[in-house]
Amino acid sequence: MAESNPWRTLSSRIAYRNEWISVREDEVIRPDGGRGIYGVIEIRPSVGVVALNASAEIALVRQWRYTSGRCTLEIPRGGSSDADTSMLDAARRELREECGYAASSWTELGSVDVCNGVTTDVQHLFVATGLTWVGTHQEAVEQIATEWRPFGDAVRMALTGEITEVCSVAAILRYSGLFPHSGANC
Amino acid sequence: MAESNPWRTLSSRIAYRNEWISVREDEVIRPDGGRGIYGVIEIRPSVGVVALNASAEIALVRQWRYTSGRCTLEIPRGGSSDADTSMLDAARRELREECGYAASSWTELGSVDVCNGVTTDVQHLFVATGLTWVGTHQEAVEQIATEWRPFGDAVRMALTGEITEVCSVAAILRYSGLFPHSGANC
Repeated sequence: MAESNPWRTLSSRIAYRNEWISVREDEVIRPDGGRGIYGVIEIRPSVGVVALNASAEIALVRQWRYTSGRCTLEIPRGGSSDADTSMLDAARRELREECGYAASSWTELGSVDVCNGVTTDVQHLFVATGLTWVGTHQEAVEQIATEWRPFGDAVRMALTGEITEVCSVAAILRYSGLFPHSGANC
Repeated sequence: MAESNPWRTLSSRIAYRNEWISVREDEVIRPDGGRGIYGVIEIRPSVGVVALNASAEIALVRQWRYTSGRCTLEIPRGGSSDADTSMLDAARRELREECGYAASSWTELGSVDVCNGVTTDVQHLFVATGLTWVGTHQEAVEQIATEWRPFGDAVRMALTGEITEVCSVAAILRYSGLFPHSGANC
């Protein structure tokens, strides 16, 4: 069912915009034929990185999240910018900015749709190995700390809910399932 | 670092609102002491259900997603409403509305933060078993079809990127990791 678009867009306007997001409100004809509106949060594609050192430890970043009002432990993640020539380029930048590392080896871990039905965010996941310290270049707004954890511990935290950020859960468990001998399987 | 809130909120206004989301724009003092704004997408808590029948098959729903402009395969998911007395109540309603099933057994699979840093969405994940057909009550706006797949196939699809919706990936792989003998492990 619905392999082709069952929605019709009648009009489109930007209802709100800041530096990071736009809210687009469309007038639509819904799949059931009724008329309505759809508010779409437009976000640039984003990236998330499973960065593993030679001791099979993963880099996790701890930071206060303004939106959830909690401190969370996540993989290094962030939005792409105009300056990024590719998603891999964005991933390299995020890992350097948030954790201070460059990586000699990058592997794609697929992408995930984030908050599908509300936002346009697609997060591209990568595995980074062969790490070299190059120093952090954190954005002024960020106040984050990197913690290195045995990958098996991160898998346990993703399973039991100590890690709650959904892209981190998906990335850690995907990597664990695809490469079960890389430190720990789930 | 940052175990207590390093942000200060100076003012708050609703910049946009529809039936499903609000956009709140706050004036803030950032962790670095600079002044700025933060646009928060306020969404009600949501639910996602890993529903398994007696043959260890999982219910997946196929639908066109207006936001991504693609057809996706996801676990039954949706937002909570004022009428829901609990997240479990919302999960029962979603499974009935989207797939037409009631379940005699419900197990919590933890929650996940969705689009953390942009939205307030927390999705509560459940496992439903002991399924009984009660008929669908799909919202008029939805046009979705339920597909039953061997749970092991769903794990493979979550790992390889055939399933891209991030809460579905997280829920399927969490269940697979926590209950490795329930059809297939990852």
